[in-house]
Amino acid sequence: MNCLVTGGAGFIGSHLTERLLERGHRVTVYDNLSTGREEFLKDARSSDRLKLVKADILDMESLKKNLAGVDMVFHLSANADVRFGTNHPDRDLQQNTIGTFNVLEAMRANGVKKIAFSSTGSVYGEAKVIPTPEDSPFPIQTSLYGASKVAGEALISAYCEGYGYQGFIFRFVSILGERYTHGHIIDFFAKLSKNPAELMILGNGKQKKSYLYVKDCIDAIETATEKSSERVGIFNLGTDEFIEVNDSVKLITEHLQLKPELKYSGGERGWIGDNPLIYLDCKKMRSLGWAPKSSIREGISKTLAYLQSHPHLLQEANS
Amino acid sequence: MNCLVTGGAGFIGSHLTERLLERGHRVTVYDNLSTGREEFLKDARSSDRLKLVKADILDMESLKKNLAGVDMVFHLSANADVRFGTNHPDRDLQQNTIGTFNVLEAMRANGVKKIAFSSTGSVYGEAKVIPTPEDSPFPIQTSLYGASKVAGEALISAYCEGYGYQGFIFRFVSILGERYTHGHIIDFFAKLSKNPAELMILGNGKQKKSYLYVKDCIDAIETATEKSSERVGIFNLGTDEFIEVNDSVKLITEHLQLKPELKYSGGERGWIGDNPLIYLDCKKMRSLGWAPKSSIREGISKTLAYLQSHPHLLQEANS
Repeated sequence: MNCLVTGGAGFIGSHLTERLLERGHRVTVYDNLSTGREEFLKDARSSDRLKLVKADILDMESLKKNLAGVDMVFHLSANADVRFGTNHPDRDLQQNTIGTFNVLEAMRANGVKKIAFSSTGSVYGEAKVIPTPEDSPFPIQTSLYGASKVAGEALISAYCEGYGYQGFIFRFVSILGERYTHGHIIDFFAKLSKNPAELMILGNGKQKKSYLYVKDCIDAIETATEKSSERVGIFNLGTDEFIEVNDSVKLITEHLQLKPELKYSGGERGWIGDNPLIYLDCKKMRSLGWAPKSSIREGISKTLAYLQSHPHLLQEANS
Repeated sequence: MNCLVTGGAGFIGSHLTERLLERGHRVTVYDNLSTGREEFLKDARSSDRLKLVKADILDMESLKKNLAGVDMVFHLSANADVRFGTNHPDRDLQQNTIGTFNVLEAMRANGVKKIAFSSTGSVYGEAKVIPTPEDSPFPIQTSLYGASKVAGEALISAYCEGYGYQGFIFRFVSILGERYTHGHIIDFFAKLSKNPAELMILGNGKQKKSYLYVKDCIDAIETATEKSSERVGIFNLGTDEFIEVNDSVKLITEHLQLKPELKYSGGERGWIGDNPLIYLDCKKMRSLGWAPKSSIREGISKTLAYLQSHPHLLQEANS
């Protein structure tokens, strides 16, 4: 089939693009290269079934043009900056909510009716049910990022009902692995490569996070989009374990053979809207025959090995 | 206090404006008069504490200017057209989602931190739990209107968490009463005044609707904003009864002393995204001491009497 992957040059998007190419599909990567990188498509570019379009999802004309003849959209492009949402509140609205609306409208203009969407476990806010299932109580949003993603989910669902689309909505925990450029692990690693003697940890270090290895994430997207026939299929993606920030720090410092002095900013939350525990119930996804193959520790190890062999990513994280 | 009511010249907004003036507050009505009407403010205009600003919530400069010195915003302006959402999908996004974002940003520019918001029972989609409580399972949106309102709720909640706002979110059933200009009752009445011999009913007529009389709605908004101290207070507003569309039709035809031939478009839903049953659990609102004073039948009677004495509203509904 002909696929279009928004954010296809990004961390998760580039892995998905490779997988789709492996399966014999044609892939248009639609990416503004703001956080995506051409280097992430190095392997993918060896295929003549790959087309890279450098453009923004806020550019409706370009979106419409590039969706001609497409069978399915994988909409992964987003502002994924949960932590600094309150510094620039319009960014999540523009890039996530309005961007998703544009994708849906450009699909409509071209008669494209299948969309997979990268949402987030952050849409559960501070969940009252843990592990949190897809149909947990109607959440109250605690971050602009979560708000923008819940708005994206809502738009997709309404288009499924109103225009006969089929939607696949994936609520991710944090994803780790090769090409990871954003989040706890790189932040800690980057800080330590700058100053190996000290590490400042936001919050009390006891926040619990669940991580999923990127190839397990791609497996899940592939499985769900092949097997689910729901009009709106919503799937939590995570592992059946979690790890304290303090334990992540321990893994990183052991890996780097460092013994920094640990400092804490204090409090249960690392920042406003940070969630002391994101832990998703992934039974629904597992019922389709999927299970993650890597543990959180393995995911962290692979991520650290990748970052060590790509030190320019660390330098940029520090800049 | 100094209040600003967006949509303050509309059906519900004008009643709220009158109530706020009665309580001695100053009120700026901020309305683009697209569906709001100056005639609805006839009584309110006798107060020198009323100021009417004819402007749009998409006009950020005007919003910012008019929010100077305001203590609390009642954000009621919206595109409330559930049924025709799929004809112009950008309208809900612009007027409801982006409009709400603008209100929140203009508040931030002025240090205003209290907001009440008119959401809708439509955010529950096709609810799995009936009567539907505020914390019912995470819903799947079935209309662009519901999607735009859930996005508005999410933004308000994220601003409460991120910037220390206090939010009051009201999920309404359909509201009836004086100045009602939009929905089943006026549609039927308008059709019958054009052709008293026949009435076409969308769907099978068995859709169940819950209605609340507008003054009961205003009582609830007043009670909740006075008594609730939650950071994000979410309140269903409805009655503990519902009525079939067929029974509404019967009340209307009896009131008008007409015996039209009833025709049905068929199906459980009147239109795509119509909900066969919206029936909200309002225990939370009642726990604050509020209860509706009018029954659905009384609300319909008052609405019909009002429409009979304001025939130009019917003519416009037919045009």
